[in-house]
Amino acid sequence: MSILALNCGSSSIKYKIYNRQKKETLCSGTVERIGIAGAFIKHECPGAEPLIENRDCPNHETALKLIMEKISGIEIHAVGHRVVHGGEKFKSSVKITPEVLEAIKAVQDLAPLHNPPNIAGIVAAQMLLPNIAHIAVFDTAFHQTMPEAAYLYAVPYEWYGMYGVRRYGFHGTSHLYVSRRAAALLGKKPSEVNLITLHIGNGVSLTAIKNGVSVDTSMGLTPLEGAVMGTRCGDLDPAIVLFMIEKEGFYAEELDGILNKKSGLLGITGKYMDRRDIEKAAEEGDERSKLAIEIEAFRLRKYLGAYSAILGRVDAVVFTAGAGELNWQLREKVLTGIENLGIKFDKWKNQAATSRENEADISADGSPVKVLVIPTDEERVFIEDVEAILDGKYETHTHFTYSFEDPNYKRKKA
Amino acid sequence: MSILALNCGSSSIKYKIYNRQKKETLCSGTVERIGIAGAFIKHECPGAEPLIENRDCPNHETALKLIMEKISGIEIHAVGHRVVHGGEKFKSSVKITPEVLEAIKAVQDLAPLHNPPNIAGIVAAQMLLPNIAHIAVFDTAFHQTMPEAAYLYAVPYEWYGMYGVRRYGFHGTSHLYVSRRAAALLGKKPSEVNLITLHIGNGVSLTAIKNGVSVDTSMGLTPLEGAVMGTRCGDLDPAIVLFMIEKEGFYAEELDGILNKKSGLLGITGKYMDRRDIEKAAEEGDERSKLAIEIEAFRLRKYLGAYSAILGRVDAVVFTAGAGELNWQLREKVLTGIENLGIKFDKWKNQAATSRENEADISADGSPVKVLVIPTDEERVFIEDVEAILDGKYETHTHFTYSFEDPNYKRKKA
Repeated sequence: MSILALNCGSSSIKYKIYNRQKKETLCSGTVERIGIAGAFIKHECPGAEPLIENRDCPNHETALKLIMEKISGIEIHAVGHRVVHGGEKFKSSVKITPEVLEAIKAVQDLAPLHNPPNIAGIVAAQMLLPNIAHIAVFDTAFHQTMPEAAYLYAVPYEWYGMYGVRRYGFHGTSHLYVSRRAAALLGKKPSEVNLITLHIGNGVSLTAIKNGVSVDTSMGLTPLEGAVMGTRCGDLDPAIVLFMIEKEGFYAEELDGILNKKSGLLGITGKYMDRRDIEKAAEEGDERSKLAIEIEAFRLRKYLGAYSAILGRVDAVVFTAGAGELNWQLREKVLTGIENLGIKFDKWKNQAATSRENEADISADGSPVKVLVIPTDEERVFIEDVEAILDGKYETHTHFTYSFEDPNYKRKKA
Repeated sequence: MSILALNCGSSSIKYKIYNRQKKETLCSGTVERIGIAGAFIKHECPGAEPLIENRDCPNHETALKLIMEKISGIEIHAVGHRVVHGGEKFKSSVKITPEVLEAIKAVQDLAPLHNPPNIAGIVAAQMLLPNIAHIAVFDTAFHQTMPEAAYLYAVPYEWYGMYGVRRYGFHGTSHLYVSRRAAALLGKKPSEVNLITLHIGNGVSLTAIKNGVSVDTSMGLTPLEGAVMGTRCGDLDPAIVLFMIEKEGFYAEELDGILNKKSGLLGITGKYMDRRDIEKAAEEGDERSKLAIEIEAFRLRKYLGAYSAILGRVDAVVFTAGAGELNWQLREKVLTGIENLGIKFDKWKNQAATSRENEADISADGSPVKVLVIPTDEERVFIEDVEAILDGKYETHTHFTYSFEDPNYKRKKA
């Protein structure tokens, strides 16, 4: 039995085929530039040269047909669809029925850039593969356990009812994966641990996890809020949005583009969004790159404090995703000087932890709060949710035991 | 020698006359509804009935003439003007020269509701009292010690140079007063203490104070950012501002009014902005009032954690202003469950501390971080800044010793 995992963006589709019996990826790839001139597919199978082929793809349906052509011969038993925003309706992964699809459409306003291509992918895949199960896995579902005090904003209350204005949070599968692994490493059940998880990639989000479930997270209604990101501003005096509209006469959409795509590390440095470029420029004396590093670390440290306060007891702080796994310099900056929160790291263990595969405990001896680096594996959550739903074994993540909760679980190379 | 203290709002002027020899207030009052039908003055002298008189006041100049009429007979030697926004230019109180007035005008865009009436008051007072010193005291000056990492936002860097987009912070005289008093109560010099000060009135701001100076504060470019306030939203996913413009077609000014005047506690409850009304309604079972209390406390607690993280060592947490001084229920909610930050309060001492005059230590025995309640006295700072500038003894607050830094200082009744 094979599962096709689809991640449909506005102009791209990423796909992967996973075989349940062999427990391995059969092939994977991307179609890029959908709806734009110059579309192409890059198809990869283990042990073979990647195949790249140009082909017009005016829409998601043609792109998906192209994928089906490349994977013909493999029998697909289910399709898993990544859906960015599940609103309040979806608290866990779910089989896509006509009602579910309607509900996903009903919240597409909350993620106007992400949900419409997710929906287009579902519709096209259901048409091309009509007789098998289609399953949705949401970025927001893990955070649906947050209490009202964490998810409601102090704006007119009607906005919540009328437009769904509240905190949702994202990167749910990543926070779920590393929190379950952290519990395993701590030798406890997920329901016994309090954690602060830092997913630091191009997008960045932190989650406060109490007794195994999300009780607060830094991203909000949208992924714009929270920490400083590659190109997103994160936390901001909301009056600045209105101030800049007055000053520059921006349209809402235009300013949204600036805050999402030209701010963050890119906004501060004016040149770089990749932390490796920023580290290098800072070493060469670039003042704004130094500043970007300072601001990013300063604000991450504030979140560590904020979440320590709401958790009351923290068992571990967990770094994950690109920079969280590799960038020991950033971790060192974030972790320095917060012994008063009970967080003490080992300088050398931290410097040694730069793997995208191996987990590491970088705590100092006797640190009341452990500090862990755990490479994330969102796909593992995705595949196991799909399998469990296929097998009728899954209700919601809060009552589900993943394979990787076994302390002896060994991650396979991607 | 007498000093006239002026606080000019858009439609009101508050005033007070302080006599230096007698060290007391001679009289005080307000002109309300300036520029609106039904203007009146309320003039009060200690030991006498307040005088209320209706009189047309089309502008700040006529209002000030009315005040001068009521205080004729008292010789004024200097005028102190409260100025809300001093931008980056003013790091301390200052004598108003033509250049200073120009500089205040140059930053009025940053506080379009506040600085223009402050300026109107200065211009009118200089015309009516041309031969004496006029001195400006800024709400922002105390926070000018913040490092770049705290005051810069992760937006396009040019916005800082072009429009002054950065964090400024407000309530400076209040944070200054309670931080100096806290140092005195701790038996230390201001430069030796790390504090978190919570000014909780209708407006709310918190400040992280390191070695006696502000290193971060919750209000930002404007007083909209930070904690939940009476009618202001505080921290918000900035995308919500754009989302609501799309949904409701708001003009920037209109939405600014909603976020500043119809949000916060009022927005959540739909009815109340005064915490006493909210407490009462919550006791009677009103769900949204209960929620407002939860959200306010939850978010204050997050700031306590965030500032603990950036300070590394905290000597005391200090509550001040209306609710900070009186509302023990709110303090209890904020302080519960953060022993992991070293903050332990005494339940009974906290309940007993409900005075607007007496200082109280509400720490639990052995708490690593002291918890203090210190009634604020912004006027004291104001008067002493004006006196020191008159006497040529003042350069900046970081190098100035106030009378209330004496551990034995006793506050006079207002």
